[in-house]
Amino acid sequence: MEEQIESVGKAFVDHYYNLFDTNRPSLASLYHPSSMLTFEGQKLQGTDDIMRKLCELPFDQCLHSITTIDYQPSCFAGAILVFVSGNLQLACQEHPLKFSQMFHLIPIQGTFYVQNDIFRLNYG
Amino acid sequence: MEEQIESVGKAFVDHYYNLFDTNRPSLASLYHPSSMLTFEGQKLQGTDDIMRKLCELPFDQCLHSITTIDYQPSCFAGAILVFVSGNLQLACQEHPLKFSQMFHLIPIQGTFYVQNDIFRLNYG
Repeated sequence: MEEQIESVGKAFVDHYYNLFDTNRPSLASLYHPSSMLTFEGQKLQGTDDIMRKLCELPFDQCLHSITTIDYQPSCFAGAILVFVSGNLQLACQEHPLKFSQMFHLIPIQGTFYVQNDIFRLNYG
Repeated sequence: MEEQIESVGKAFVDHYYNLFDTNRPSLASLYHPSSMLTFEGQKLQGTDDIMRKLCELPFDQCLHSITTIDYQPSCFAGAILVFVSGNLQLACQEHPLKFSQMFHLIPIQGTFYVQNDIFRLNYG
């Protein structure tokens, strides 16, 4: 059970940040109409609003590198909580930004979607 | 609904860190036998194990100051996700440590308990 959670969580994290860094619009496949994103305190709901925000961020090229990933089963059957910390390197900046992000992954038809997503930069 | 979530979440965060800083053993009242804590990657489950870990941390006096709090409703009826960033000042250190922490709060009998708790220091 614990291995499965880590396996799913790790695969999700790799997939999510790879899409973010290489083909941001395709992140839409990971959200649902009920999904919520809180990005630096700004609240967005639903795939359309979330994707508009993510695609309008004031940088094009970026590279996420992950420092830590923690996983826990949620109380909802089969759901997983994932907590990530890492660095976000922007093409336009010399030094990477540190960030923390959590995801609540809900199982559906053999895969998972992001129901809850909270992102914060960790200012130095 | 959103106001209620913020109100509950804010009250929880204030209460949690106040207990942590002034009477750490009393945090036991916020956990259940099913609760999970991942503390800097170490996994603990159940009130007893969680409290042993929190009370054995290698510092006595500390003061949490909160920088940001984000809230979202979870998919489980009435449950709340809380995402906190802040500083942890230890009596034995000159500079505060930055941390991020998430809680999954589950309603029970008019109050909430912590089902999921993930804590990470954000190293500079």
